[in-house]
Amino acid sequence: MSSSDIFIGETIGTAILILLGGGVCAAVTLKASKARNAGWLAITFGWGFAVLTAVYTSAPLSGAHLNPAVTLALAIKDDDWSNVPVYWAGQLLGAAIGAALVWVAYYGQFHAHLTDKEIVGGPGAQSTEAKAVEAQEAGAGPVLGVFSTGPEVRVVWQNLATEIIGTVVLVLAVLTQGLNDKGNGLGILGALVTALVVVSIGLSLGGPTGYAINPARDLGPRIVHALLPLPNKGGSDWSYAWIPVVGPLIGGAIAAGIYNVAFA
Amino acid sequence: MSSSDIFIGETIGTAILILLGGGVCAAVTLKASKARNAGWLAITFGWGFAVLTAVYTSAPLSGAHLNPAVTLALAIKDDDWSNVPVYWAGQLLGAAIGAALVWVAYYGQFHAHLTDKEIVGGPGAQSTEAKAVEAQEAGAGPVLGVFSTGPEVRVVWQNLATEIIGTVVLVLAVLTQGLNDKGNGLGILGALVTALVVVSIGLSLGGPTGYAINPARDLGPRIVHALLPLPNKGGSDWSYAWIPVVGPLIGGAIAAGIYNVAFA
Amino acid sequence: MSSSDIFIGETIGTAILILLGGGVCAAVTLKASKARNAGWLAITFGWGFAVLTAVYTSAPLSGAHLNPAVTLALAIKDDDWSNVPVYWAGQLLGAAIGAALVWVAYYGQFHAHLTDKEIVGGPGAQSTEAKAVEAQEAGAGPVLGVFSTGPEVRVVWQNLATEIIGTVVLVLAVLTQGLNDKGNGLGILGALVTALVVVSIGLSLGGPTGYAINPARDLGPRIVHALLPLPNKGGSDWSYAWIPVVGPLIGGAIAAGIYNVAFA
Amino acid sequence: MSSSDIFIGETIGTAILILLGGGVCAAVTLKASKARNAGWLAITFGWGFAVLTAVYTSAPLSGAHLNPAVTLALAIKDDDWSNVPVYWAGQLLGAAIGAALVWVAYYGQFHAHLTDKEIVGGPGAQSTEAKAVEAQEAGAGPVLGVFSTGPEVRVVWQNLATEIIGTVVLVLAVLTQGLNDKGNGLGILGALVTALVVVSIGLSLGGPTGYAINPARDLGPRIVHALLPLPNKGGSDWSYAWIPVVGPLIGGAIAAGIYNVAFA
Repeated sequence: MSSSDIFIGETIGTAILILLGGGVCAAVTLKASKARNAGWLAITFGWGFAVLTAVYTSAPLSGAHLNPAVTLALAIKDDDWSNVPVYWAGQLLGAAIGAALVWVAYYGQFHAHLTDKEIVGGPGAQSTEAKAVEAQEAGAGPVLGVFSTGPEVRVVWQNLATEIIGTVVLVLAVLTQGLNDKGNGLGILGALVTALVVVSIGLSLGGPTGYAINPARDLGPRIVHALLPLPNKGGSDWSYAWIPVVGPLIGGAIAAGIYNVAFA
Repeated sequence: MSSSDIFIGETIGTAILILLGGGVCAAVTLKASKARNAGWLAITFGWGFAVLTAVYTSAPLSGAHLNPAVTLALAIKDDDWSNVPVYWAGQLLGAAIGAALVWVAYYGQFHAHLTDKEIVGGPGAQSTEAKAVEAQEAGAGPVLGVFSTGPEVRVVWQNLATEIIGTVVLVLAVLTQGLNDKGNGLGILGALVTALVVVSIGLSLGGPTGYAINPARDLGPRIVHALLPLPNKGGSDWSYAWIPVVGPLIGGAIAAGIYNVAFA
Repeated sequence: MSSSDIFIGETIGTAILILLGGGVCAAVTLKASKARNAGWLAITFGWGFAVLTAVYTSAPLSGAHLNPAVTLALAIKDDDWSNVPVYWAGQLLGAAIGAALVWVAYYGQFHAHLTDKEIVGGPGAQSTEAKAVEAQEAGAGPVLGVFSTGPEVRVVWQNLATEIIGTVVLVLAVLTQGLNDKGNGLGILGALVTALVVVSIGLSLGGPTGYAINPARDLGPRIVHALLPLPNKGGSDWSYAWIPVVGPLIGGAIAAGIYNVAFA
Repeated sequence: MSSSDIFIGETIGTAILILLGGGVCAAVTLKASKARNAGWLAITFGWGFAVLTAVYTSAPLSGAHLNPAVTLALAIKDDDWSNVPVYWAGQLLGAAIGAALVWVAYYGQFHAHLTDKEIVGGPGAQSTEAKAVEAQEAGAGPVLGVFSTGPEVRVVWQNLATEIIGTVVLVLAVLTQGLNDKGNGLGILGALVTALVVVSIGLSLGGPTGYAINPARDLGPRIVHALLPLPNKGGSDWSYAWIPVVGPLIGGAIAAGIYNVAFA
């Protein structure tokens, strides 16, 4: 794979991942969405099939890491660090693009949610101040959860541990795929299993922190949240931002270690 | 594939797609249905497995496009436009047949919903006027949502953008199937992945407009809704009808462009 | 396949099908069940994965028809009627065994539901008359729905049409499996697709009648319901019983006809 | 496979199984979890995909029994008992490790649930006595259900029968995998089918007892529950503990018997 194929593949793939993953959060959270209050099962299947779609679409170009922790683990496993920067750059760029696309696709829903009013007269027809007053009156909630993760109980060591544990499970499944495949070319089936593993992690380990298990998935959209011109959007919770970056990287490294000791 | 196989396959396949897709909307929406209020997850899995069933059943005859936007994208990708009219004709006819079959399968449910009364004495035993009065008294809602899509927030550029984005994701997944398959004949698995991609698009991008992502899926049933002798059915919302036709066609063309530039 | 393998395979497979299919109805319906009120999605996935488990387990012995309508369709398609009686006998026997096993597995739940009291002192510790009085006071509902299907709106032509349409979809998918497989031995994948097709039919066409789409699935358990010593069980609704037998058989025949004309 | 590979594989695999399986119970049950009240469908898919992840990850090392009843059935089927102790030891150790990891990942949620207060000041900042008083005032419920199973209606013969029936279904599906595979190396697909069979058993047979269907799955976490320093955790219900151990072992033996008579 050429560097440009890797970069393009990771950018497209991670953009699709975050478009669909952030999308399901928007769909379930925001007012004026048909999927509102569809629940945790919708969130977890939504993210799982987002992984399937993104991996399936980008695998022919870049092998579909779509996650800096996966890239790190594969670099440790193979002791080959040459493409790590290209993968990481594509992943972060793609995640930001995907988050911006969520904003486009749910433009009217963000508006309705943050101002508690449906758009009348198209974007810009109402002053920001009027929106903010309305929102305060309507008790509209923050929308950071559409973009990035946050803990239910803020305990640093536990939040970090939960992200590490979740990522170890994910990366172990990714690394053992080669052992399960045995050269019969079932790449598609591997993508499906990975997707269902992500559903599993979401259902089982997502309760405490929202399972970032991917530094790009959390950091890219958080940056976009900070930049977007959304009224009443609330803060971007930067004090928490390092946990879903550092935790998954530690988890990926541990999984690679387990793999090299027990499976290789 | 002969033209007649293509036409028959697309007609059968799209009829099954709309029978099952419209069926789940009827099941979840209408009164006197066991599935009433089963929620958005039921809708999205219902449509996804409708795609699976329809693709699986019609693929041996026509390759199972079942979507004018897919046909358009494949024509652009291969620069072969010879069969486009046959595909499109079969798709529109099949969609109309499927919508009519939903009406047959849910006849009593439509009646109960639109008149807020279960049928007594079989069809025709009650005058249309009596039904209309009953319905008004009972506050029975419109049933257009069983047939075609509509936006939660009516903003033309956003509604169009959402349909374009959703269709780009769908068609990119369809186009990359050939790259993932590598000649090992895993057509069934491709159908399954496509189905889950459709679930994904529904969960993640269906909130604003109901994800037509297929011109035939929306236009065929809308025509049938306009023609059916349903009392109190409400209008067919023709002012919106162009968006789920034009948006998906633009999305298909964009996806073909991305494919030809980045993947070919 | 020998006749005894066919008979044993169909008996085991259909018993598992009805054990799991009836089981999910018991789980969602009865009092004192952890799954109570889990909803229509649980019912439809429960039946779908019941098909998967049953087909997977019995396919090596009998090819896993597990449905008289499928057996009929295959006999029409191949014009070979020699094994039809053996298949049908095994299917009906297996369905009855499966229904009886549901009663065993949910014994305490049936008791709690029908008498609105948890068992104290084991089976038989309370007189039947006392139970009936309790049940009337508690408003305990009938349990026929755990065993067999029934319509929400009782319109003969529609109920029959809905069962026919659902079975046509099911059997078309079964018949086209051979065309999709192309000899690469993906029998397991075919079982999975069939299971998801059954989920699809349940979600999309199950609303009006509860989708028997299988004469043995409905008739066998209905007989068991009539025979079981359940207090306050209510009637077995024999006046409806012919529809989920005749409808699926007509549907199977129509699907075989479509297959022979369009696909063969 | 060497004994050490078997032991390590079963330990890792069963740890992942219980981490994810216990995790989904924690996610749906405990306060301050994003998945709280996600329902029975979340529980059953959570356990099913836990099986998928665990089997997929450990199969290359040990063949992924992960269940003493499966190990017993394979020993009976092949009349080879040499590795049974190694498998069982790894399974029990892994189950205990998995349960401990659930405690780590949901540390703050256990605290919030058992004391009805979010952690302030980190672990240990509050005296155990103060927590117990708070919990009593708040009516916090027991958490044994996160670790091991229990019956809704406590009838020994039924509880045992339900566990036996569920395990027969599971083990029959595991044993027939070899007949379905026919040497085309579709191990991944077999893991997926097994996972969905477990979802099926959960949906259909989990209502009465919570479907242990695996002695290690129940006993290992029950021991951990007894040992963990959780305030207000309630009793470990040792009087029931033998049923989810003995029932699955009987079920495994019966399934092996059926297999040897009907399928071999």
